[in-house]
Amino acid sequence: MDGLPQRVSIREVGLRDGLQNEAPLPTEAKVRLLEALASTGVPRIELTAFVSPRAVPAMADAAAMAAAAGTFRDDGPEFSALVASPGGARRAVDAGITTVEYVVSASDGHSRANVKATTDEALARTSGVADIVHGAGGRLEVIIATAWDCPFDGPTDPDRTVRVAAGALALGADSLAVADTIGTATPGRVTALISRIRVELSPSAAQPITLGAHFHNTRGAGLACAWAAVQAGVTQLDAAVGGFGGCPFAPGASGNIATEELVYLLDDSGIATGIDLEAALAAAALVEEIVGRPGASNLLRAGDRKRGRTPVSTDLNTIASDAAS
Amino acid sequence: MDGLPQRVSIREVGLRDGLQNEAPLPTEAKVRLLEALASTGVPRIELTAFVSPRAVPAMADAAAMAAAAGTFRDDGPEFSALVASPGGARRAVDAGITTVEYVVSASDGHSRANVKATTDEALARTSGVADIVHGAGGRLEVIIATAWDCPFDGPTDPDRTVRVAAGALALGADSLAVADTIGTATPGRVTALISRIRVELSPSAAQPITLGAHFHNTRGAGLACAWAAVQAGVTQLDAAVGGFGGCPFAPGASGNIATEELVYLLDDSGIATGIDLEAALAAAALVEEIVGRPGASNLLRAGDRKRGRTPVSTDLNTIASDAAS
Repeated sequence: MDGLPQRVSIREVGLRDGLQNEAPLPTEAKVRLLEALASTGVPRIELTAFVSPRAVPAMADAAAMAAAAGTFRDDGPEFSALVASPGGARRAVDAGITTVEYVVSASDGHSRANVKATTDEALARTSGVADIVHGAGGRLEVIIATAWDCPFDGPTDPDRTVRVAAGALALGADSLAVADTIGTATPGRVTALISRIRVELSPSAAQPITLGAHFHNTRGAGLACAWAAVQAGVTQLDAAVGGFGGCPFAPGASGNIATEELVYLLDDSGIATGIDLEAALAAAALVEEIVGRPGASNLLRAGDRKRGRTPVSTDLNTIASDAAS
Repeated sequence: MDGLPQRVSIREVGLRDGLQNEAPLPTEAKVRLLEALASTGVPRIELTAFVSPRAVPAMADAAAMAAAAGTFRDDGPEFSALVASPGGARRAVDAGITTVEYVVSASDGHSRANVKATTDEALARTSGVADIVHGAGGRLEVIIATAWDCPFDGPTDPDRTVRVAAGALALGADSLAVADTIGTATPGRVTALISRIRVELSPSAAQPITLGAHFHNTRGAGLACAWAAVQAGVTQLDAAVGGFGGCPFAPGASGNIATEELVYLLDDSGIATGIDLEAALAAAALVEEIVGRPGASNLLRAGDRKRGRTPVSTDLNTIASDAAS
């Protein structure tokens, strides 16, 4: 498997992206989930979003989640929070968060709907966000939303995505991630965009840029996109426990790629994640219990081959004998 | 996208693998589905299986399905049927089927459960099957089941899979496909096995062997495996309309990779399938109606980006404004 990394760092986004469209859950339940997630060995956990509690009631307890994260040991996961403005960044650092994600949409349509500003206006705010985060001794990642497609503007011109990526680095981002916000990307276009960003923005071929990626499984291609991204040089991937993140008003529509499925896929392909799959499956079962409905994890239904959770029935695939016929 | 094929030929296996574990449906309903599938432009359709009607009641109408296929125009799809013995092959050609798939499991455990014979015994029957099929002017594909993992024996030694593939060719197979029978494969192992078969069994580097592959999405990795297979040189893929093929006794467990999701993924990645996606989505809706329950197609829930079926709500992924905060 030439060219593949030995290790991929997964960021668990279930507490934020997985739950942001759900009815608000008690903070106590989310802290229980946080503890289950931390016990899986996942290296990074996105805790919450410091955004308008009117727009996203499910994230209204952001400061409480940050406080809960503060009780973990120093050798635990790295905690982060998402913001959409300098004001959000201020509240995040005031709550003790030092790893901050600031979102800039590569398409004007989504940017306007999301933060009432064009892409360029939102991008220009990066330096203000960076000042706040760096002033608190923190680290800033810019997540480029609608990197492939926009629900309003259609396909995003790759030139725009590359320009936003370059601009974010120039304005203070310490790292970048590209997001398939509406779950329409496919591996061919993932390879093309990631490869282009890597070529154009790496300091040199010997010093490739560290790039993260964020996929939704809305049309079934999420894990295929994640695999294509890893092949193209991505070493940081977002995923949500249980595959939550789907719109709760569209039953059956799946959301983020499921953390446990990504762990299974990478580990079995020889790429280490540091995550215990059995603990990840337990966390997926817990989030279903807390939310009160099934998520979108096929693996949780089927079980892990290696640990004997495969159902005894093999009816699923048996060809059936006609040797006697 | 160097090295990728311009075209991939999809074989629709929904009428066989998709329905074989369901309660038997009226032949009339299956013929309606067959007509819907043929109208999508899919180049190949697996109609049925000539196996024991006691073991697989859902396929008891195999001859009737073959007769229905006989009414299609000559420029329509290529129809095939699956068999598990020379006796099945005889019944298939007697029913007018000229493209036959014979299954050999690469693992003894699955082979015994499936056809009451070891791998070597089942493989040896290939020549008898080939004689019958070739005697009728037909074409024989050997599908190697449990090519990666066996539900009884665990991981299949790649040496075994390669040996079965070579044996099948020597005994009269006109083409080969490898099947991830229990949906446990991952892209890293797909790349490894496909690459090895291509290297060891191609007549020469300039004349690569034509190889098919068959994946299940049981653990979420089906489309990622399909993509890895295409990258490794596979140009023929099986898929089932609506993602059926899951065990009906394990709700939520998904089955074959969904045809419409594979079409979306390949077309959007620049690889032609010749299949009309809108017609494929209509066929997926029809199979759900006929079977009477939802399948496992995320795309059917979410809609195709290009044809404006994306739900109006963008709540799914919106980050939500805190510009005012």
